[in-house]
Amino acid sequence: MRAAAIGRGMIEYADASPEVRAVFDDIKATRGVPDVNNFWKALAVHPPTLARTWESLKQVMAPGALDPMTKEMLYLAVSAAAGCQYCVASHTAAARAKGMTDAMHGELLAVIAMAAETNRLAEALRVPVDPQFQ
Amino acid sequence: MRAAAIGRGMIEYADASPEVRAVFDDIKATRGVPDVNNFWKALAVHPPTLARTWESLKQVMAPGALDPMTKEMLYLAVSAAAGCQYCVASHTAAARAKGMTDAMHGELLAVIAMAAETNRLAEALRVPVDPQFQ
Amino acid sequence: MRAAAIGRGMIEYADASPEVRAVFDDIKATRGVPDVNNFWKALAVHPPTLARTWESLKQVMAPGALDPMTKEMLYLAVSAAAGCQYCVASHTAAARAKGMTDAMHGELLAVIAMAAETNRLAEALRVPVDPQFQ
Amino acid sequence: MRAAAIGRGMIEYADASPEVRAVFDDIKATRGVPDVNNFWKALAVHPPTLARTWESLKQVMAPGALDPMTKEMLYLAVSAAAGCQYCVASHTAAARAKGMTDAMHGELLAVIAMAAETNRLAEALRVPVDPQFQ
Amino acid sequence: MRAAAIGRGMIEYADASPEVRAVFDDIKATRGVPDVNNFWKALAVHPPTLARTWESLKQVMAPGALDPMTKEMLYLAVSAAAGCQYCVASHTAAARAKGMTDAMHGELLAVIAMAAETNRLAEALRVPVDPQFQ
Amino acid sequence: MRAAAIGRGMIEYADASPEVRAVFDDIKATRGVPDVNNFWKALAVHPPTLARTWESLKQVMAPGALDPMTKEMLYLAVSAAAGCQYCVASHTAAARAKGMTDAMHGELLAVIAMAAETNRLAEALRVPVDPQFQ
Repeated sequence: MRAAAIGRGMIEYADASPEVRAVFDDIKATRGVPDVNNFWKALAVHPPTLARTWESLKQVMAPGALDPMTKEMLYLAVSAAAGCQYCVASHTAAARAKGMTDAMHGELLAVIAMAAETNRLAEALRVPVDPQFQ
Repeated sequence: MRAAAIGRGMIEYADASPEVRAVFDDIKATRGVPDVNNFWKALAVHPPTLARTWESLKQVMAPGALDPMTKEMLYLAVSAAAGCQYCVASHTAAARAKGMTDAMHGELLAVIAMAAETNRLAEALRVPVDPQFQ
Repeated sequence: MRAAAIGRGMIEYADASPEVRAVFDDIKATRGVPDVNNFWKALAVHPPTLARTWESLKQVMAPGALDPMTKEMLYLAVSAAAGCQYCVASHTAAARAKGMTDAMHGELLAVIAMAAETNRLAEALRVPVDPQFQ
Repeated sequence: MRAAAIGRGMIEYADASPEVRAVFDDIKATRGVPDVNNFWKALAVHPPTLARTWESLKQVMAPGALDPMTKEMLYLAVSAAAGCQYCVASHTAAARAKGMTDAMHGELLAVIAMAAETNRLAEALRVPVDPQFQ
Repeated sequence: MRAAAIGRGMIEYADASPEVRAVFDDIKATRGVPDVNNFWKALAVHPPTLARTWESLKQVMAPGALDPMTKEMLYLAVSAAAGCQYCVASHTAAARAKGMTDAMHGELLAVIAMAAETNRLAEALRVPVDPQFQ
Repeated sequence: MRAAAIGRGMIEYADASPEVRAVFDDIKATRGVPDVNNFWKALAVHPPTLARTWESLKQVMAPGALDPMTKEMLYLAVSAAAGCQYCVASHTAAARAKGMTDAMHGELLAVIAMAAETNRLAEALRVPVDPQFQ
């Protein structure tokens, strides 16, 4: 375990252990980027969590029944619902890089906001689930 | 204002005021359904909120830069993140009705879960936003 | 410490220790009710938390610069935002008992929903705080 | 659709389309302020969402069964529960402008905090709803 | 992909594919239980998410620098904060099985509630981080 | 009531009333620190809430069936789940001061993230509680 403090401490590639470098190298190769972003540098303070999180993310975000842009928009919707500023910033950028236009982004924002509104109303009114939705 | 208690009290069409019936009629016509679901019956205890919420929802969920199935999946993602059981049930049904397959649903669940995981990590590590995401 | 399992186990007055009975008696006297509601019976499995929570609640909800009905409506707003079904049910009843009408309840629901909507938009757009609000 | 990036991009009046200016003008006239705050400038990147959100907000926050100050305090309570920093800042200012005193603010904070505490306890204990609250 | 509807549909061992059975077998062997609980049966409708989630959980919850009971209590704290009723129920049982006493549970509840309270106060007051905590 | 604005206004010891100083003195003595942190200075704008919150916190965080480091880790877990940046920063520091190592912190992060992930899955799948967990 490195001496670096966890939390706000970020591990740069030059200072990383071989174990961490291997993950960073895979992120860079998979994404075609020259450096990993801050999230991964921060997570590198706990190498097992870094490795596991990256393996899961790589698998989950790969093209499948849903295309990568749709997956990024879903990721952004959840991040906005959670109020995570870092996540909103990074996944807005990622969704745009995968093709999200201004118009798509605007509609995505409208859906997120509308869902938040009706979520609260349904909770506040304690609406019973309709038989056909069971 | 009707005498019905707000919360758990639901207004059926037969008991509704003309103002509420007009909204119910528009929901049924727009969606091609024989009756509105419980959410609208519960919301009918406050007619101005019923009317405004339906007008907004109708506008937000209409086809646009995003197709209706994608909008429903985004709605479902936010509802699951909020833990709203009624909303999860109704929007899972709506997304399926608009074409979401088992495989798409499975991947949507995986993205929601993965986003929740990295949202927490980014918050717990207080990761600073990268300059390129500003 | 009683043998009762914490969680879903609820302590009735007849089975309560003198320490728990003293709190139950004070709740009943303060509120003028014949029995405490389930929340307190559930909390009674950990007497120090029962006593401390009741003392705090009694102090916070007493009339002050804000009247009791307004305090109950604020309590309900937070509970709906948190999606706590028990809390929504009990504080809706409490707010009504303190004078909240159907019309007030309807407007309260509208404000909760509207706030949830703009909360999400502000987070998703990462709006910087205006200088005049600092 | 303007070229401005959605998210952190804010539209000033001088750069706004006639459609956006009309909304800004209505906000300024309704509130009697010389300029709109950042939330509206950020939302202006998607004009339909800007227009719809403002129309809803104007309707919801108008005087009714609840007075404007109480509505602002409810808005603030939900925003604090959601942890939205922009919303807390702007609605604290708005509530003060409508008459919220230091003493009222202090009691509002106490209710928000107390509600958060008992919300968690009720969830963690999975308290069943009392028959009289159904 | 099985025909079973995702959501409320649960896959029993007798109906499971070899891929799903392999995960169920590993869960049963690792935990020494005769059957998996409902969470895994529900997740089995999307086998890749089932497999990945179990592999991650098994790794994360294994004994390490923190003992299994402490890990379960942390899991329960997060689940209560999220208001997930299924999660609260299952992790309360798991924590008890690993040694959590009534007194420990009571103190855990008190910490969860206290944290929720001060979380809200810090957000509502927008407290700036002290230099020594950066 | 002091004239200081609540929210971002912080009361320093030199400017505090005798009532507030008494609380600050008790915090400093109990914790063996030369000054209170920003949370308490911010809370001091409403003395009754300051006094009540400190009394509760002192009682809840005292050694009991759970040791102080475990309590701080639980506090941190809830704060990260709530996304409260101030709380994450201060309780990370507090947990470290009470003995949390880098390895423990890393595992705590992994449990928080894993719990967030399965919380969402259980909510999104609406998993019914197993009979043995009731």
